[in-house]
Amino acid sequence: MIVLGADGYIGWPMAMHLSRLGHRVVAVDNLARRAWDEEGGTESLVPIATMEQRVARWHELTGRTIAYEPFDLCDHDALDACIARWRPDAVIHFAEQRSAPFSMVDREHAVRTQANNIIGNLNLLFSIQAHVPTCHLIKLGSMGEYGAPNIDIEEGYITIEHNGRSDRLPFPKVPHSFYHLSKVADSQNIHFACRIWGLRATDLNQGVVYGCETEDTHLHPDLMTRFDYDSIWGTALNRFCVQAATGQPLTVYGKGGQTRGYLDIRDTMACITLTLDNPPDEGECRVFNQFTEQFSLNQLAELVTEARRQHGQETSVVHLPNPRVEAEEHYYNAKHTRLLDLGLQPHYLGNTLVDSLITLVARHTDRVDPVLLERPSVTWRAGGNEVWRQYARPERRSELASATAELVGRATRVTPAPPAGADGIHPAPAVAAS
Amino acid sequence: MIVLGADGYIGWPMAMHLSRLGHRVVAVDNLARRAWDEEGGTESLVPIATMEQRVARWHELTGRTIAYEPFDLCDHDALDACIARWRPDAVIHFAEQRSAPFSMVDREHAVRTQANNIIGNLNLLFSIQAHVPTCHLIKLGSMGEYGAPNIDIEEGYITIEHNGRSDRLPFPKVPHSFYHLSKVADSQNIHFACRIWGLRATDLNQGVVYGCETEDTHLHPDLMTRFDYDSIWGTALNRFCVQAATGQPLTVYGKGGQTRGYLDIRDTMACITLTLDNPPDEGECRVFNQFTEQFSLNQLAELVTEARRQHGQETSVVHLPNPRVEAEEHYYNAKHTRLLDLGLQPHYLGNTLVDSLITLVARHTDRVDPVLLERPSVTWRAGGNEVWRQYARPERRSELASATAELVGRATRVTPAPPAGADGIHPAPAVAAS
Repeated sequence: MIVLGADGYIGWPMAMHLSRLGHRVVAVDNLARRAWDEEGGTESLVPIATMEQRVARWHELTGRTIAYEPFDLCDHDALDACIARWRPDAVIHFAEQRSAPFSMVDREHAVRTQANNIIGNLNLLFSIQAHVPTCHLIKLGSMGEYGAPNIDIEEGYITIEHNGRSDRLPFPKVPHSFYHLSKVADSQNIHFACRIWGLRATDLNQGVVYGCETEDTHLHPDLMTRFDYDSIWGTALNRFCVQAATGQPLTVYGKGGQTRGYLDIRDTMACITLTLDNPPDEGECRVFNQFTEQFSLNQLAELVTEARRQHGQETSVVHLPNPRVEAEEHYYNAKHTRLLDLGLQPHYLGNTLVDSLITLVARHTDRVDPVLLERPSVTWRAGGNEVWRQYARPERRSELASATAELVGRATRVTPAPPAGADGIHPAPAVAAS
Repeated sequence: MIVLGADGYIGWPMAMHLSRLGHRVVAVDNLARRAWDEEGGTESLVPIATMEQRVARWHELTGRTIAYEPFDLCDHDALDACIARWRPDAVIHFAEQRSAPFSMVDREHAVRTQANNIIGNLNLLFSIQAHVPTCHLIKLGSMGEYGAPNIDIEEGYITIEHNGRSDRLPFPKVPHSFYHLSKVADSQNIHFACRIWGLRATDLNQGVVYGCETEDTHLHPDLMTRFDYDSIWGTALNRFCVQAATGQPLTVYGKGGQTRGYLDIRDTMACITLTLDNPPDEGECRVFNQFTEQFSLNQLAELVTEARRQHGQETSVVHLPNPRVEAEEHYYNAKHTRLLDLGLQPHYLGNTLVDSLITLVARHTDRVDPVLLERPSVTWRAGGNEVWRQYARPERRSELASATAELVGRATRVTPAPPAGADGIHPAPAVAAS
């Protein structure tokens, strides 16, 4: 079992969860997320250990081994060698740039996001086809791929009746950002690979995840996962919790009717485990909408306000100009029954949970940067603004852009000819059963 | 007016057509198509002049000037300088890798196709936003983006009634290849740029184009455009014409029920001119299906057979195993009324036209390579086969892969800081009116 992007917010808890369940886990990450923090001057509110410390602590506390392999999916040779060596039954793919605002900073960030995500995912599809065509690919997509249509959002596909005929087709997508567009492209590429090569995949359109505590992260501070509150990497709910913990007004962008799907990080663990235990058929590209509840920003602000009220504290809410271009009052009803059908028992977001999130935050308020908390640093119409420019480190950005170029270079590099005796200089990938 | 990809099969006739109409035409191309021919050992059946010869001959014969600028769209600095210098009212974007089989050769070709097309198009969107936000982007897409759904294909958008509600959404796409997938990603990125920045675009989902002769190409052999018959770059109709001219059986892949939209190259000229003359509103991403007739492969083979019969010649048809993964008998009804509504007067494919195509081919039969004519070199399940390996030049491929890497490098390179006095080191793009 390979977890790609195992240093990330969900990737690390997932690696531990699967290890606890007895899977042999290979944890792959190039630590890009930490580099992007350095670039943009942001930081997890909860301190996180290095990958080396994490896997060592995990082994010490549980006796279980997680094999950490540092490489980038855009480096096809490294990825291909990893897949060929471990021959996984399943690959769980979190290894993408996952921030909408980061993708909207400027042209270079949009290109970097789409090149990184689309090429990495393409490389993975070809490696699976070549070495383990029956492997189950579990890919993390996003509910933000769909946008906010005026009809019910189905799980990946919709049966359309039109002029007296009918077909079941991919649900039309109107994504929210260049980041979400990269995931739409991934979904399309995966769907194609299943149709053409007979691969089997589950595309999980995940909602906004909250919480840091799983049965594994709370074992030791070295096993904690990140908590982001800034406007690039954080979520509105996380920001509200930090604002509540520090006595600031909650800042809602725009009218606050923006409604999305949400889920507890423990439910992410359960959803992916259920997905693993119930693989799709060969050639099937299955799509689940992975969230448990819908909230508008105003509803989240009210939940936080109510949680504080129970401690006798008053919380105010202010509305700021919306840095994004999005509907602020809209219909939203997304289906999410397929994981429930597999047996998911959701944890719901309530006052108690909000309270425990605020308690977690309160232990680290000395690490809060008030500017990053209060001011959006990227707008959808004009890109990175003065806050972005104040915090961003151009020399770090330059290094990262070069690194991307180099990795994309590797992605388009010609593989050396096989040794004499092989049947050709451009080996065709193995044919998948289909 | 800028024509991107002006050295290509349609790009070159388009540049001349617009020049004839009195537009100031800037013709951009990095000659990638010629390099890919060298890489794969393929060649236009009709000899074509260099871009320098073409623009010189055009000037000599008409007194009109086409400014040729050689650069790659993945080189953002070059593209941005060109857009900033010429400040075009319209950009016509043909500058993409446009072969489905080429994108299916192997991983590197899939990655090269998607990186080249998606990044080039993203760079263009950002340059238009920065310098000419009211410019009309005319982007060549493909009918192959839709696939072959069991419902009528609408022009870009479909109104879906679902559970008592209704929305007009992008038509769901099930594309035929990694190449077509790159165009789907482009369409999504363009749609987003129109929504967010208020750009105006027309996405032309073009059918299969046939014919080489426009009122300009026939003026002089140096002004001819290419004719491809091999299995990577050619179309089935072109292959049939060459087979007819050389007395070979027509080779239909699979059952032959594969139905697509087709149009005459003169209608392409007319469609794009009509599109230019009737621009969309600000913020509008308009989609036209650009073709005039539908044919199955069997119907095309019958047209060719009938044209030969009128010259007293018998033609046989053989069915070969299909190298592609696609439905071979399917419903297909794609709408294409919007260009007709603007005034398009189609040229229809009939015996006479097939006859003139065969006559054109007959002048060059000494240049036909029988292996490239008869044998597909790429299959959808296993990539480039022994024919591909026989013709492909690995050293050329290696150079091209390196060039791609370098250009993607430029695409993700950080632009130097502006001179002192500017307001920041990461200039935000100009805000488009929206």
